[in-house]
Amino acid sequence: ALTELLENLHAADIADLLEQVDAGDRARLIRLYDREFDGEILSELDESIREEVIETLNPLVLADAVREMESDDVVDLLEDLEVPQQEAILEALEDADRVAVEQSLSYPENSAGRLMQREVVMAPEHWNVGQAIDYMRNSEDLPDQFYHVVLVDPRLHPIGNVTLGRIMATKREVPLTELVEDTFQVIPADQDEEDVAYAFNQYHLISAPVTDGEGRLVGVITIDDAMIVQDEEHEEDILRLAGVGEESSLADRVIETTKRRFPWLAVNLVTAVLASLVIAQFEEIIAEFVALAVLMPIVASMGGNAGTQSLTVAVRAIATRDLTGSNVWRVIRREVLVGLVNGVIFAIVMGLVGLAWFGSPILGVVIAVAMVVNLVVAGLAGTVIPVLLEKAGIDPALASGAFVTTVTDVVGFFAFLGLAATVLL
Amino acid sequence: ALTELLENLHAADIADLLEQVDAGDRARLIRLYDREFDGEILSELDESIREEVIETLNPLVLADAVREMESDDVVDLLEDLEVPQQEAILEALEDADRVAVEQSLSYPENSAGRLMQREVVMAPEHWNVGQAIDYMRNSEDLPDQFYHVVLVDPRLHPIGNVTLGRIMATKREVPLTELVEDTFQVIPADQDEEDVAYAFNQYHLISAPVTDGEGRLVGVITIDDAMIVQDEEHEEDILRLAGVGEESSLADRVIETTKRRFPWLAVNLVTAVLASLVIAQFEEIIAEFVALAVLMPIVASMGGNAGTQSLTVAVRAIATRDLTGSNVWRVIRREVLVGLVNGVIFAIVMGLVGLAWFGSPILGVVIAVAMVVNLVVAGLAGTVIPVLLEKAGIDPALASGAFVTTVTDVVGFFAFLGLAATVLL
Ligand SMILES: [Mg+2]
Ligand SMILES: [Mg+2]
Ligand SMILES: [Mg+2]
Ligand SMILES: [Mg+2]
Ligand SMILES: [Mg+2]
Ligand SMILES: [Mg+2]
Ligand SMILES: [Mg+2]
Ligand SMILES: [Mg+2]
Ligand SMILES: [Mg+2]
Ligand SMILES: [Mg+2]
Ligand SMILES: [Mg+2]
Ligand SMILES: [Mg+2]
Ligand SMILES: [Mg+2]
Repeated sequence: ALTELLENLHAADIADLLEQVDAGDRARLIRLYDREFDGEILSELDESIREEVIETLNPLVLADAVREMESDDVVDLLEDLEVPQQEAILEALEDADRVAVEQSLSYPENSAGRLMQREVVMAPEHWNVGQAIDYMRNSEDLPDQFYHVVLVDPRLHPIGNVTLGRIMATKREVPLTELVEDTFQVIPADQDEEDVAYAFNQYHLISAPVTDGEGRLVGVITIDDAMIVQDEEHEEDILRLAGVGEESSLADRVIETTKRRFPWLAVNLVTAVLASLVIAQFEEIIAEFVALAVLMPIVASMGGNAGTQSLTVAVRAIATRDLTGSNVWRVIRREVLVGLVNGVIFAIVMGLVGLAWFGSPILGVVIAVAMVVNLVVAGLAGTVIPVLLEKAGIDPALASGAFVTTVTDVVGFFAFLGLAATVLL
Repeated sequence: ALTELLENLHAADIADLLEQVDAGDRARLIRLYDREFDGEILSELDESIREEVIETLNPLVLADAVREMESDDVVDLLEDLEVPQQEAILEALEDADRVAVEQSLSYPENSAGRLMQREVVMAPEHWNVGQAIDYMRNSEDLPDQFYHVVLVDPRLHPIGNVTLGRIMATKREVPLTELVEDTFQVIPADQDEEDVAYAFNQYHLISAPVTDGEGRLVGVITIDDAMIVQDEEHEEDILRLAGVGEESSLADRVIETTKRRFPWLAVNLVTAVLASLVIAQFEEIIAEFVALAVLMPIVASMGGNAGTQSLTVAVRAIATRDLTGSNVWRVIRREVLVGLVNGVIFAIVMGLVGLAWFGSPILGVVIAVAMVVNLVVAGLAGTVIPVLLEKAGIDPALASGAFVTTVTDVVGFFAFLGLAATVLL
């Protein structure tokens, strides 16, 4: 019954199911479903449970599953496994496939070379439509999925893409070179997969040829794989912005999760202590005017929020390449002005709240001025810090948050308490 | 020279360039480039500057540009324009195209019906490969880009997809029904585009047929458009999590940006005042032990960070449908335990810091206990709040942050100061 139920599910949904149950149920499910377990399920599994599943699987089933996978999926499976598991899987492959997989693995992690499939349909640039059709119709081993015929010159350099649709729609005697797509991007095998996903999204590519150091065609990347990378890069950004280890998964256990969350909490502790040191400079005046202790977190909190708004916009715009040298000054100017306008509005509100609450006009003025200062600084820091991190080669999604909130905490407390000390003492 | 330079750029890059310069330069660029301005550039432009660009464009150039666009791109262009601009563009279209576009616009915003292109290649289910090839080779108006032939029954219900590659590779007499892809998803025209993007990413679809209320084929969605939606949904999530109006763009001016940032800052002000009200309950003890004012932001800040970690993981997992009824309790349990473990570690650290800094063992114990309490609460609130918001039909990306940090602020200050009051007084 269970086997029947699973058989009606897509491999991706079976993999999700395996991710969502606990380790004990997972092992039971796999043993029950054993014989039907195929390569597709394997390649859909989240990295966090792949090793565990592979250990549970019957080695013969595993070998069968791996042999039916496409080269790019085998590479994706292998790259995160430990060496003994890698070798077991490589041995299960046929010789030609093993060589292809090992070549892909020779490219750096997260590169186009790891993402490409080796199965390419290519044609010499001087062919016409009829020749391409005859070649494909007589070929024994066309890939399962392909969308373009890649035209190559005699040195195997790709020079254009012709879609199958154009070939279908065109008379036999028309040369293929007349049918090449306007948009044609060649991807070097060592290009970062993030740049690959960007190119696919920006230029609406469906597939793109990948070349080695000499510019020779070695594979092709298809949009479905680029879409997965886009999703992974997004997950990385969103989790990094929140200070969560980006490799985390819902299937992780308590210990792994604790370890991944710990480092950024530790960084935050340091910055919080830093802010406390600022407060400690003003102990006497706080003891005298306790209203300061009541109000001071408001200024820091508003600055932190405004800074997070600016930095998230900046981090996203850097990732989409919309924030560049040509508009960075205009964006900084805008963020500062936005901080100023919102700062003035909230300054008036909080000035009145402070006045009404504690009956002190001076306190109202102090919190108002501190609010303006901190929101302007938040807009500035929230834009400049990600831009500088990016220039320094550090992922702005990773470290901007800690820096920006340190700035807004320190400036917020210092502006508010310092001003109060000047005016009230 | 400028025209030459732009001619070598892809339409998407020209659009990016127009987004990055200021409004004056933009108008100048468009007037210079006027005659070459085409439909592709128009559909690549960010929504925030489309109206402005369309007003600047020569109406004749605009009409030409629109006529060469695909139906889905015209729909995407039209849906965000004001009525007079919409009508001007609709009038420029040929009759058949106008009807197709108006039908698409009759579907709800952000639905599959808006995303689909009307141009579909279909074949009756009883055809064989040879018939499909002959039909396509004799057809006058195949779409520019297509990857599948959709098989339909006599009532026009789609029943399977056959890739062009399979057709190329197969003998003429084989029935098309033998070649249909294993994975076949039919998308109702009123489905939300977010679900469309999910289906494409989850099942690695390349194109999928769209059906009307009676299940009849009305169009097809291709993966390049689904990839754009995926990217937009990411942007929406990341900006909503940061409390930024998700429709914002780098090209927005100061006033628009200020308006978009204002509401969440206002919400934050309310929650910050709430936290201050908690502090105000403890004014006497703070006046007596000013060290409390120095240390209290640390507990709140650590809780806020831990809560943000948990809520971001939960929001992302809800979006990818990895957090479901079947594992929600396990995830809540895990987050609480992670909060407990990290809480204990940071409690020890801060207890020692408190002791060393202020020489008071009691203060060390107070901050340690408050830290554990707040990190546990952060893990709990960070998971439960997004899940409940999702159940209530509210986007968890939008509102979780405000709720969670309110909880961690209030609990942080209350636990720390309340405990201090109990122990120290
Ligand atoms: Mg999955
Ligand atoms: Mg991988
Ligand atoms: Mg990356
Ligand atoms: Mg692939
Ligand atoms: Mg990144
Ligand atoms: Mg862009
Ligand atoms: Mg663009
Ligand atoms: Mg739209
Ligand atoms: Mg669209
Ligand atoms: Mg949406
Ligand atoms: Mg399209
Ligand atoms: Mg969403
Ligand atoms: Mg999933």
